[in-house]
Amino acid sequence: MIPDILSQGQYATVYNFLSLVIASQLFTAVFLLISLPRVLPRYRQAITVAIVVCGIAAYHYFRIFDSFKDAFISKAAGGAGDYSQAVGVSFNEGYRYVDWLLTVPLLLVELIAVLALARKVQSGLLMRLVPAAALMIALGYPGEISGDNGLRGLFGLLSTIPFAYILYVLFVQLSKSLNTQPVSVRKTIGRLRFLLLLSWGVYPIAYLLPLLNISGADAWVFKQVGYSVADIVAKAVYALIIFGIAKAKSYEDNA
Amino acid sequence: MIPDILSQGQYATVYNFLSLVIASQLFTAVFLLISLPRVLPRYRQAITVAIVVCGIAAYHYFRIFDSFKDAFISKAAGGAGDYSQAVGVSFNEGYRYVDWLLTVPLLLVELIAVLALARKVQSGLLMRLVPAAALMIALGYPGEISGDNGLRGLFGLLSTIPFAYILYVLFVQLSKSLNTQPVSVRKTIGRLRFLLLLSWGVYPIAYLLPLLNISGADAWVFKQVGYSVADIVAKAVYALIIFGIAKAKSYEDNA
Amino acid sequence: MIPDILSQGQYATVYNFLSLVIASQLFTAVFLLISLPRVLPRYRQAITVAIVVCGIAAYHYFRIFDSFKDAFISKAAGGAGDYSQAVGVSFNEGYRYVDWLLTVPLLLVELIAVLALARKVQSGLLMRLVPAAALMIALGYPGEISGDNGLRGLFGLLSTIPFAYILYVLFVQLSKSLNTQPVSVRKTIGRLRFLLLLSWGVYPIAYLLPLLNISGADAWVFKQVGYSVADIVAKAVYALIIFGIAKAKSYEDNA
Amino acid sequence: MIPDILSQGQYATVYNFLSLVIASQLFTAVFLLISLPRVLPRYRQAITVAIVVCGIAAYHYFRIFDSFKDAFISKAAGGAGDYSQAVGVSFNEGYRYVDWLLTVPLLLVELIAVLALARKVQSGLLMRLVPAAALMIALGYPGEISGDNGLRGLFGLLSTIPFAYILYVLFVQLSKSLNTQPVSVRKTIGRLRFLLLLSWGVYPIAYLLPLLNISGADAWVFKQVGYSVADIVAKAVYALIIFGIAKAKSYEDNA
Amino acid sequence: MIPDILSQGQYATVYNFLSLVIASQLFTAVFLLISLPRVLPRYRQAITVAIVVCGIAAYHYFRIFDSFKDAFISKAAGGAGDYSQAVGVSFNEGYRYVDWLLTVPLLLVELIAVLALARKVQSGLLMRLVPAAALMIALGYPGEISGDNGLRGLFGLLSTIPFAYILYVLFVQLSKSLNTQPVSVRKTIGRLRFLLLLSWGVYPIAYLLPLLNISGADAWVFKQVGYSVADIVAKAVYALIIFGIAKAKSYEDNA
Ligand SMILES: CC1=C(/C=C/C(C)=C/C=C/C(C)=C/C=O)C(C)(C)CCC1
Ligand SMILES: CC1=C(/C=C/C(C)=C/C=C/C(C)=C/C=O)C(C)(C)CCC1
Ligand SMILES: CC1=C(/C=C/C(C)=C/C=C/C(C)=C/C=O)C(C)(C)CCC1
Ligand SMILES: CC1=C(/C=C/C(C)=C/C=C/C(C)=C/C=O)C(C)(C)CCC1
Ligand SMILES: CC1=C(/C=C/C(C)=C/C=C/C(C)=C/C=O)C(C)(C)CCC1
Ligand code: NA
Ligand code: NA
Ligand code: NA
Ligand code: NA
Ligand code: NA
Ligand code: NA
Ligand code: NA
Ligand code: NA
Ligand code: NA
Ligand code: NA
Repeated sequence: MIPDILSQGQYATVYNFLSLVIASQLFTAVFLLISLPRVLPRYRQAITVAIVVCGIAAYHYFRIFDSFKDAFISKAAGGAGDYSQAVGVSFNEGYRYVDWLLTVPLLLVELIAVLALARKVQSGLLMRLVPAAALMIALGYPGEISGDNGLRGLFGLLSTIPFAYILYVLFVQLSKSLNTQPVSVRKTIGRLRFLLLLSWGVYPIAYLLPLLNISGADAWVFKQVGYSVADIVAKAVYALIIFGIAKAKSYEDNA
Repeated sequence: MIPDILSQGQYATVYNFLSLVIASQLFTAVFLLISLPRVLPRYRQAITVAIVVCGIAAYHYFRIFDSFKDAFISKAAGGAGDYSQAVGVSFNEGYRYVDWLLTVPLLLVELIAVLALARKVQSGLLMRLVPAAALMIALGYPGEISGDNGLRGLFGLLSTIPFAYILYVLFVQLSKSLNTQPVSVRKTIGRLRFLLLLSWGVYPIAYLLPLLNISGADAWVFKQVGYSVADIVAKAVYALIIFGIAKAKSYEDNA
Repeated sequence: MIPDILSQGQYATVYNFLSLVIASQLFTAVFLLISLPRVLPRYRQAITVAIVVCGIAAYHYFRIFDSFKDAFISKAAGGAGDYSQAVGVSFNEGYRYVDWLLTVPLLLVELIAVLALARKVQSGLLMRLVPAAALMIALGYPGEISGDNGLRGLFGLLSTIPFAYILYVLFVQLSKSLNTQPVSVRKTIGRLRFLLLLSWGVYPIAYLLPLLNISGADAWVFKQVGYSVADIVAKAVYALIIFGIAKAKSYEDNA
Repeated sequence: MIPDILSQGQYATVYNFLSLVIASQLFTAVFLLISLPRVLPRYRQAITVAIVVCGIAAYHYFRIFDSFKDAFISKAAGGAGDYSQAVGVSFNEGYRYVDWLLTVPLLLVELIAVLALARKVQSGLLMRLVPAAALMIALGYPGEISGDNGLRGLFGLLSTIPFAYILYVLFVQLSKSLNTQPVSVRKTIGRLRFLLLLSWGVYPIAYLLPLLNISGADAWVFKQVGYSVADIVAKAVYALIIFGIAKAKSYEDNA
Repeated sequence: MIPDILSQGQYATVYNFLSLVIASQLFTAVFLLISLPRVLPRYRQAITVAIVVCGIAAYHYFRIFDSFKDAFISKAAGGAGDYSQAVGVSFNEGYRYVDWLLTVPLLLVELIAVLALARKVQSGLLMRLVPAAALMIALGYPGEISGDNGLRGLFGLLSTIPFAYILYVLFVQLSKSLNTQPVSVRKTIGRLRFLLLLSWGVYPIAYLLPLLNISGADAWVFKQVGYSVADIVAKAVYALIIFGIAKAKSYEDNA
């Protein structure tokens, strides 16, 4: 699925977007780290998890970026002309699944932690969400690496079961817990769920592309850009909203 | 627009200026990070954003510097003689737009945050300034990468609309809010606006150069030096002035 | 024992697992470092040791990862095809023993420290556990590097003596000290011991493989994956459980 | 002026001295950063500037070191034999001027800040010292890069004017302010001024060498060693003395 | 004295020991940095110096490690076979003297600082120990780099004079000051002096080897291992004992 040839413009687009993700994730983590003392201790667990998630993402994007840079090379002066696959190096898409395995469960921990629910309710939700998230990623992987569209479809389907379950827990079961949240943040939390839905939805759609016979360099570049934007939204923007909720709740609790 | 050949002196000039920007941005960030506890909590958001802005700039200049170093090579002993474009690597100017997309909105956040206005006034200003800044950069990009002077002019013009709007908000709408600021800092804030105008103005002017048919290695070197100086003023010097305002206001608030 | 040839899939599997370990250890250390102030001072020694252990592991996995990447190379475009051993570089398995020499004793320190026993009981336990752990690793090393199965068996046996002693101290002698622990954490500590047993058991089993004449690329890849998973459990997961115990005890002590 | 050939001993001498400077500056910065809480808040500005100065110097020496390592190469086994200039890389002396432009004014800020004079006196001194320092470096640069001895002499002379002015401010104007300093530190401050004079004097003398027709590999190696020692004295040793003054004054103020 | 050929086993041994030193020094520094708040302010100077010493050592071992890795190369697949000296790179032993020049005086500062003697006694001891330590290293250097055994012997002898003086100050003059130390730590301090004697003694012995006509790859590997172990004992283990003393004294002072 990795294209043999990228034009200079396509190469530069992927290059710049990957770098954009590094900067976004790294400096969101830095921002949150410096700002941590500004929320009450009870919300710091959520922010700490957010820092770790953005940090892990930055680490993986450093690797993805380097992998991309090495994997496509031009032989023209000034890097003009086409970029073709280098000898002996492949663009490693596997990093994404390694990243998701660690960060997707943590994104749910982040959300639950900022709600600061009763200890029992909280652990009940985590017991359901975290394993489902890990399962979802683990089931998607064999489909991703298999060259066979049948297997891809099958594992995609299996992976969708825990995905649906996560959405059910978030949109149905979680709803009554939201009533205990201060009015001022209830709306933000609601919108956060939709932002989660929207950004997470990008990944199964990208997964479908080969099944839809969409391929070629343009589609691939588009997919990389899509992943990049989705990753920034699902981790960095998401973290900043969670930080906003934590600040608003800290303010309310103190009043 | 990237010159084919640079003299050793031209190469060294760009090289040293890029390194100067790295050191300036990185250590302004370090200085502010260590000094953060010296301003009152209510001004720390502004300084935190300043740290992040200088940090992002340092990150991008590390990349730009490495990109430059790889992109031009000499074949003479001791690096004497001319530097020509290397095979397979281009000097990546795209980093600048990636940088601006993240930092230019944040520079406005920094300014508004240090004013510590009423929550509603503040969010009103941010709602207008941040999207305008993002739009300004996004509209400039297609013109920058297009080889066509017509497109360049068109997108430059479109990008100037949000630019003008930002200046209008800063110089007209913001003015009445300045009356609520302590007398001691009012003059500094006024001067800060002009420093912003001056340094930001460098970018659209540099953008015009190809339209004015100014090209060649000398002009290009001059542009790199201009960008470097403007970036130091618009981020590092600007951040230090904001820090000065935050210190002065902390002092007044405590008195 | 290092295979001459790895398929692209085998190469990618080892590659991704090694990177997973880096991210897990590094960010567990980061998480604990940020969270340190959330436990009472008397439990910070345990968490500090946990940070150091995960940090050391991350450092070694960076080296192991780079060593692996350099040691196997493909000559096909895009890194397709088989990976064979590069000229002049070997995959350095020795790092693992260097790592164990430092971290295995510290893992026991971590466990004893979180119990916060009477000073005398504590130093009594450490005096027995730490030298035993160091001895266990030191005795295993000559067997590991020797090509001879007889020596391997002999040193493996010798190394098993301190191993058995450690288990005896942990499962017999330590048991009465557990009665002084608050009820709320007693169960967790018990389970932690079993997790330790389970994960530590992986290493002597892997050591046996050549004696059982199990070899070839598949077995080797399986061993690398096994080490990776065992290392994450024995250090990162273990550290997080210790942190949980420290938090629970901090909470009890304050009540 | 860069020699074509260095003997192995000359190469090793420069190499080890450059590395010595890195370690000295970097770990002076680390030491001061950890020790910052040990002086009263009113002296932290001075120490923070000292940290930044040593940090910037470490950064530049990392670059200078790498530049030196790449610029001279031996072709004998084990790096024995002579080192000649590599193809395509030059030893970049320009870094020194970039460094000075940033650090020399800051060294004066450091000194004035630790005196903790009345706000007005302080800003009066800074207004004179900082621009003079920047001017001194800026005027020296064209002479340094010009191959022409006439220009070198001219710009050296021009640069000496602000240099003399700085010394006048420090040794004449500052003297009466010293009377307000606690007796215990007055002597140290006096000696600090002489240490400044001594170490700063190295730079104009080194600048004179080509005018005195002193050249060749030995003189060049001697100059690099001289710069290294002067940089350690003028930044790291100087910073430690300033820290000593800040500690002594913190102690007095508390008594 | 650097051997022309190392066997794979010899290469791996040096390699793994150098890496062990990096990990030991780096993470001792990290451990002490995190643990610093756990001792009383009056002992933090000692621990800060210990952090700096271990940090400097880690820095130098990173360089020594890289230098070693580059200096010996194998031409066999998988790095099997012999390692011979590479073209153009030498293993730089000079780093050790650069390291000692900085760290050996600081090791004595560390020791004196943790005793927290009367200010006058303390500065009296430092005035004698620090210059003696610097002199000892500086005198050893010319002998080390000279190829001539006569010069080696001469400078070794000269260097032994300050060495003997240091031991005299530590074992005779310091002894009466130890009576002012709390009983609980007196024994530890006594043992620390012997550990110092033991580990420092390794260096002059290693220095003698060429005079004793002991050479060849085995002796050289043994020397590298000896240096590595001595460095870990003289810096990391030493620092941890000093930390233990500081903790014990903090506890006493509070009681
Ligand atoms: C349902 C489904 C999938 C879901 C993936 C998701 C939901 C990934 C989320 C990733 C995030 C949030 C990353 C943040 O940076 C797969 C595995 C593609 C396989 C096909 C079916
Ligand atoms: C109006 C205009 C532009 C404005 C750019 C600006 C205002 C950039 C500011 C950058 C800053 C402040 C960077 C700091 O480091 C473009 C995009 C060049 C396109 C042409 C029209
Ligand atoms: C008994 C035994 C061994 C035990 C090794 C162990 C118990 C290692 C534990 C490592 C850990 C916990 C690493 C964490 O990352 C050896 C040396 C293989 C040699 C054969 C006999
Ligand atoms: C007067 C004079 C000069 C002075 C340079 C000085 C005073 C530099 C100080 C540098 C320091 C303090 C560096 C610290 O690391 C120049 C520019 C060589 C040009 C010739 C005349
Ligand atoms: C007496 C003597 C020497 C002593 C060296 C010492 C005592 C070095 C200590 C180094 C330490 C403590 C390093 C820690 O990492 C030399 C210079 C070899 C030269 C021969 C005579
Ligand atoms: Na490339
Ligand atoms: Na991702
Ligand atoms: Na170059
Ligand atoms: Na910029
Ligand atoms: Na490889
Ligand atoms: Na391990
Ligand atoms: Na070299
Ligand atoms: Na300098
Ligand atoms: Na090698
Ligand atoms: Na050493």
